[in-house]
Amino acid sequence: MAEVLAATTGSDWRSLDPENTLYVELPAGRVIIELAPAFAPHYVANVKALVRSGYFDGAVMLRSQDNYVVQWGDPNSGDSGKAKSIGNAQKSVAAELDRPLSSEVPFTRLADGDIYAPQAGHSLGFPVASDPKSNRMWLAHCYGMVGAGRGDTIDSGNGGELYVVIGHAPRHLDRNVTLLGRVVQGMELLSTFPRGTGGMGFYTEGIERPVIRGAKIAADVPEAQRTPLEVLRTESPAFQKLIEARRNRPESWFVHKAGKIDLCNVPLPVRVRAAASSTIH
Amino acid sequence: MAEVLAATTGSDWRSLDPENTLYVELPAGRVIIELAPAFAPHYVANVKALVRSGYFDGAVMLRSQDNYVVQWGDPNSGDSGKAKSIGNAQKSVAAELDRPLSSEVPFTRLADGDIYAPQAGHSLGFPVASDPKSNRMWLAHCYGMVGAGRGDTIDSGNGGELYVVIGHAPRHLDRNVTLLGRVVQGMELLSTFPRGTGGMGFYTEGIERPVIRGAKIAADVPEAQRTPLEVLRTESPAFQKLIEARRNRPESWFVHKAGKIDLCNVPLPVRVRAAASSTIH
Repeated sequence: MAEVLAATTGSDWRSLDPENTLYVELPAGRVIIELAPAFAPHYVANVKALVRSGYFDGAVMLRSQDNYVVQWGDPNSGDSGKAKSIGNAQKSVAAELDRPLSSEVPFTRLADGDIYAPQAGHSLGFPVASDPKSNRMWLAHCYGMVGAGRGDTIDSGNGGELYVVIGHAPRHLDRNVTLLGRVVQGMELLSTFPRGTGGMGFYTEGIERPVIRGAKIAADVPEAQRTPLEVLRTESPAFQKLIEARRNRPESWFVHKAGKIDLCNVPLPVRVRAAASSTIH
Repeated sequence: MAEVLAATTGSDWRSLDPENTLYVELPAGRVIIELAPAFAPHYVANVKALVRSGYFDGAVMLRSQDNYVVQWGDPNSGDSGKAKSIGNAQKSVAAELDRPLSSEVPFTRLADGDIYAPQAGHSLGFPVASDPKSNRMWLAHCYGMVGAGRGDTIDSGNGGELYVVIGHAPRHLDRNVTLLGRVVQGMELLSTFPRGTGGMGFYTEGIERPVIRGAKIAADVPEAQRTPLEVLRTESPAFQKLIEARRNRPESWFVHKAGKIDLCNVPLPVRVRAAASSTIH
């Protein structure tokens, strides 16, 4: 993997779009989420409206369920007297579970197959599954993917509670709840929260829940305070080489080459932009 | 899932064999590992010899790599002057990467297929993959599986460093390193250790590594201090019902039924034996 990445060129990488990059500031550091407007345009817009209204300032981790998800939001959302204002955001947003396969949005197929869908692959840096028969594709619940918690009805979420996958990919959630992004930095801050002892990993009364200092859209943060991340383009030939190097690991440590790779085991490399290209930019 | 489990009978469950149950005592609580002598007889025997020689008393977490593994062992194993004695245990044990498919050991096939192997399923409570052509089966690297760390050569491990999968199943490790058991209690203690900041998640010099108080084989612990766990038999019809309830989730929350389930998403239920059956026993 290191060799493949060392052989990449600048054009194999792209900078995150500040307008679609979410910073969640925890006491231990910054979690960075790339939002996915191509897949969940209305949810992304609503999350941004919530962030810009200060909705996540004072939010807490509500839930940390082992081998599943962490989830955060307003601790008082159930109490109309104390609930945080949602500003200009919507109270609920219709689910965005899939989108058309179309030439407007790339789909790079993974040759290895998928248990849960007719096809799997990548699009714009995200793991996706697809069904050529129905001509739809959708974001897949891999480690680090970010979704919008919802209630019993499919359209009841609004992005005010966000969850992140911290365990083996719960792909049975695909097309049951809206995914809207992926954590590109800071997963280790989310994955190590103590697990909640209530049902579904909710923190129970009386326990101090981990606090969120606040959230910002990167575009609203002075450039000097942004984290200049780049992600490897999943449409690049370099990405295909990377997949092959993971499918059949060349290191001598491996005595048995897997020959295959599962969608959610494909690494999606992220790096801090080198200072040189940063000044050109 | 709750309904399926509520409908089970006592014979759907089995108690852990105290002679093949490993307790790893952490300051935060007990981690319980069911050993797999049917798959790694010599490694299991060596781990037991190490445990009984006190090898893991004073061991530490060496490594915590996000979305991958934690690994523990003797912090001084590289220093012949300070390294812990291995007692009657072997310095190295030949890899036990797979075993014959045979009528002596059950194999319950999962109908859903597998990316990494011709077949997948369960055997004696463990997730396994198999190849009918070569007539072999092997333990699969799912969340919670326990393996024996090794060096560059395939036969260089001895069970003195044990790792546990804490992320998306790294199935590319299958048949590259010996798996010897599964964590049946206490995963949340292992999965939340701070990640190491060195390469491969190793804790770097100067950081206080999480400590292991000691390890015991359950048979050597007074019965009153044992944890009376039972696991659902993976050969039982109840287990098949459970798989189906997870493959097509009946809860109304789900608007899209997956129709399939990945090997490493199949839950392997564990419960504390009820007091009534405990007294009969």
